Amino acid sequence: MKDINLTLLTDFYELTMANGYMNSGMADKTAYFDVFFRNIPDKGGYAIMGGLDHIIDYLENLKFTNEDIEYLRSKKIFSEEFLDYLADFKFECDVWSVPEGTPIFPKEPVITVRGPIIQAQFVETAILMMFNHESLIATKASRIVRAAQGRAVMEFGSRRSHGAAAAMYGARAAYIGGCIGTACAIVDRETGIPALGTMAHSWVQLFPTEYEAFKAYAENYPQNCTLLVDTYDVLKSGVPNAIKIFREMKPEKMGIRIDSGDIAYLTKQARKMLDNAGFPQATITASNALDEYLIRDIILEGAKIDSFGVGERLITAKSDPVFGGVYKLSAIEDEDGITPKIKISENVGKITNPGVKSVYRIYANDSGKAQGDLITLKDEGVPQGKVNSEGVEEIEIFDEESPWKTKVITDYTIRDIRVQIFDRGKLVYDRPSVKEVQQYCMDQLETIWEETLRFENPQTYYVDLSQKLYDLKRGMLEEHRKK
Amino acid sequence: MKDINLTLLTDFYELTMANGYMNSGMADKTAYFDVFFRNIPDKGGYAIMGGLDHIIDYLENLKFTNEDIEYLRSKKIFSEEFLDYLADFKFECDVWSVPEGTPIFPKEPVITVRGPIIQAQFVETAILMMFNHESLIATKASRIVRAAQGRAVMEFGSRRSHGAAAAMYGARAAYIGGCIGTACAIVDRETGIPALGTMAHSWVQLFPTEYEAFKAYAENYPQNCTLLVDTYDVLKSGVPNAIKIFREMKPEKMGIRIDSGDIAYLTKQARKMLDNAGFPQATITASNALDEYLIRDIILEGAKIDSFGVGERLITAKSDPVFGGVYKLSAIEDEDGITPKIKISENVGKITNPGVKSVYRIYANDSGKAQGDLITLKDEGVPQGKVNSEGVEEIEIFDEESPWKTKVITDYTIRDIRVQIFDRGKLVYDRPSVKEVQQYCMDQLETIWEETLRFENPQTYYVDLSQKLYDLKRGMLEEHRKK
Repeated sequence: MKDINLTLLTDFYELTMANGYMNSGMADKTAYFDVFFRNIPDKGGYAIMGGLDHIIDYLENLKFTNEDIEYLRSKKIFSEEFLDYLADFKFECDVWSVPEGTPIFPKEPVITVRGPIIQAQFVETAILMMFNHESLIATKASRIVRAAQGRAVMEFGSRRSHGAAAAMYGARAAYIGGCIGTACAIVDRETGIPALGTMAHSWVQLFPTEYEAFKAYAENYPQNCTLLVDTYDVLKSGVPNAIKIFREMKPEKMGIRIDSGDIAYLTKQARKMLDNAGFPQATITASNALDEYLIRDIILEGAKIDSFGVGERLITAKSDPVFGGVYKLSAIEDEDGITPKIKISENVGKITNPGVKSVYRIYANDSGKAQGDLITLKDEGVPQGKVNSEGVEEIEIFDEESPWKTKVITDYTIRDIRVQIFDRGKLVYDRPSVKEVQQYCMDQLETIWEETLRFENPQTYYVDLSQKLYDLKRGMLEEHRKK
Repeated sequence: MKDINLTLLTDFYELTMANGYMNSGMADKTAYFDVFFRNIPDKGGYAIMGGLDHIIDYLENLKFTNEDIEYLRSKKIFSEEFLDYLADFKFECDVWSVPEGTPIFPKEPVITVRGPIIQAQFVETAILMMFNHESLIATKASRIVRAAQGRAVMEFGSRRSHGAAAAMYGARAAYIGGCIGTACAIVDRETGIPALGTMAHSWVQLFPTEYEAFKAYAENYPQNCTLLVDTYDVLKSGVPNAIKIFREMKPEKMGIRIDSGDIAYLTKQARKMLDNAGFPQATITASNALDEYLIRDIILEGAKIDSFGVGERLITAKSDPVFGGVYKLSAIEDEDGITPKIKISENVGKITNPGVKSVYRIYANDSGKAQGDLITLKDEGVPQGKVNSEGVEEIEIFDEESPWKTKVITDYTIRDIRVQIFDRGKLVYDRPSVKEVQQYCMDQLETIWEETLRFENPQTYYVDLSQKLYDLKRGMLEEHRKK
């Protein structure tokens, strides 16, 4: 997938605007664009950053082929000067981003692109697509993995995914969110995320009897013999035949998979049968239209499951399949300096944060937990606390929509959660392996309070504005109102 | 996208099974697999067949590279004989399919693959992925286009799609379902589906005033000048500025786009303002998280809209993003002939139809409408009617689940709705252009009763079994029960 040229995977209007900027003499104005999102899918309390690695591939490989240029020329609306520019296109923007696997929250500029408007505008569609898709799946996977309470979760969704990229990058995002592997072979070959699998119902159907099908499988795979027991009847036929095979063939690893029926009831019965037969080490895998809600419920019912195979509801994020990241102009830079830009809306929540910004996360030193994020104007530098009347350094943050609601934090550590990815088009970021990203995600989730991580009515994580940014925004709104 | 090798885009278990079939001496048994689905998304009355063109590309390009073989060898579970087989892999199955764009219904074998089990099993994952994804989007698009009642619908969803393949093949599927174009440039270059686009809010923000932004745009694109009027205030600023530009610049085509706020109210007001200013020809495009339900409702409210841009809810099929196509073994063929296979389930609806089958659609000659589909055993040939007591030829079909419910059709035309695509691995199908597929889809929808096409509680389309197939299935179930 890395090798395909996605340069023209862009909304056509990015091209008409780019051409327009050039014709109107504005192409070299430096623009700042922020990627952020407004709502967390499934009304959850957190999302997981995804897509960055893919975005890096995309930006590094931006190149207009002769075929692309000819296609655009055929539209008869682009100037030759513009087409020449595209033919020699070289990406020269700065990019800052939150690393993949970071818990992220609404309103934060998780990615910022700075560069000539003609370039910084152009990359909108693909950056949003990759950010939205992979954050969606990483977030969904994180919820499902948390619901499984330490039991393994495998991503099984290729056949119901929205095409090859959804299958592949979706499996990678699911791994970041905590899945231990995928069913999809190409993902293993490309990323090292382990692909595992056993048999389909057709294997069992093909042999004269279930017993013979199991036996043939155990002969082929004595190292790891997981038998699909629900082709005919789980408890009357599948599990008894599996036990017979485990006795006769003594595979190194053994297990059963149940893909239909009442998973809670069937796994409890199957567990008893396996234990009574002397196979407490035989694992039970369940798979059948599962998601975080069903997994939570069947565990509550006492289901005996060692690992879950989760397909369609993970790979499509079925309960809420849209991640609404947007890409908004926040500032223009020219010889006269930086001019902040704002997008007004009748809906307060849709008004953008103007200016060139940073995002800091504030951790309480005693618990290690994140207490909130602070969006500042970049030129403010690292936020400084004040020494209070008791001689203790404290930092006060307040809610933008209810500025009288303040929170005072003492004994804290503050951290800029974004890193520079590109410096004038040059990659300056040391890309972690997907395994490192998964570990980082797990570690970072440890810093988020349980109240924010829960599924139903989670506590809203604080994302506040610095006083300077708040004043800038209010001032711009006021100025607009006067007009 | 066509050029990337998706051979390993497969569930790993397809490979473990294939290796197992070879080791167990079963690789050359000829198997029949049917693709079918059980439920229509959104509780709709019909679905639209998608994915076939993509499946053809996939099957034609199946090839295991050295890198693939090395990857598989590294797993230490595949025999060298099997790896040699893969290195020389040549697809040699037969494939029959319903053409893309055909209205399809649950239980029908829309695709059948016949060939050596080692091959016919292997292609399951990718075939299902392409069929499921593209049928999902074509179906959703068809619903949205019908809701728009003749108004144009553009696919605008790349940025919210589940990756590049979802954007590209999704746009193609949306076009098949009736969209007139896409926002995505690469889709236009690859398929000729027209990509169109105007400007983002950032264009308007970048200029000192909205008027200047519109003016610059009209200077650049006098042929087709659609202005985005909701950056500041649609009725107080956007539409008045647009009218000013239309007066001053007199673009060839002119229009406005509204992307936020109450679309019904705003478009009614904007229409009046444009008409009163002498621009009845100026078009109004609306876009903002639309789908078939919202479009139906705002049209009912009297919204004045010429075309819709539909993004996230179309490209993700948000209301129901899973198309549940499955791939099930239906028969085995060897020197002794054909042995039908059945998959039993406690749920009657999940029991598969055994044997090698055909699908016929029966049309009433007077109305031209399809009266139902009949699944038969292939060796029955084309279903023959009987001459009734009045000397009229009639055909009787009955509901599998309520066999006493019969329907008698006279004066009919009967048509095998599937065509052969591959003959022993050789493509024998003349692939239509996507434009032809779109036209075919529109024509075919004309043959479906309105009752089946409506959104809420549609009439279930008849999909019945021939007496022979019914008897075969009942007999196999009975035999299984006795065991």
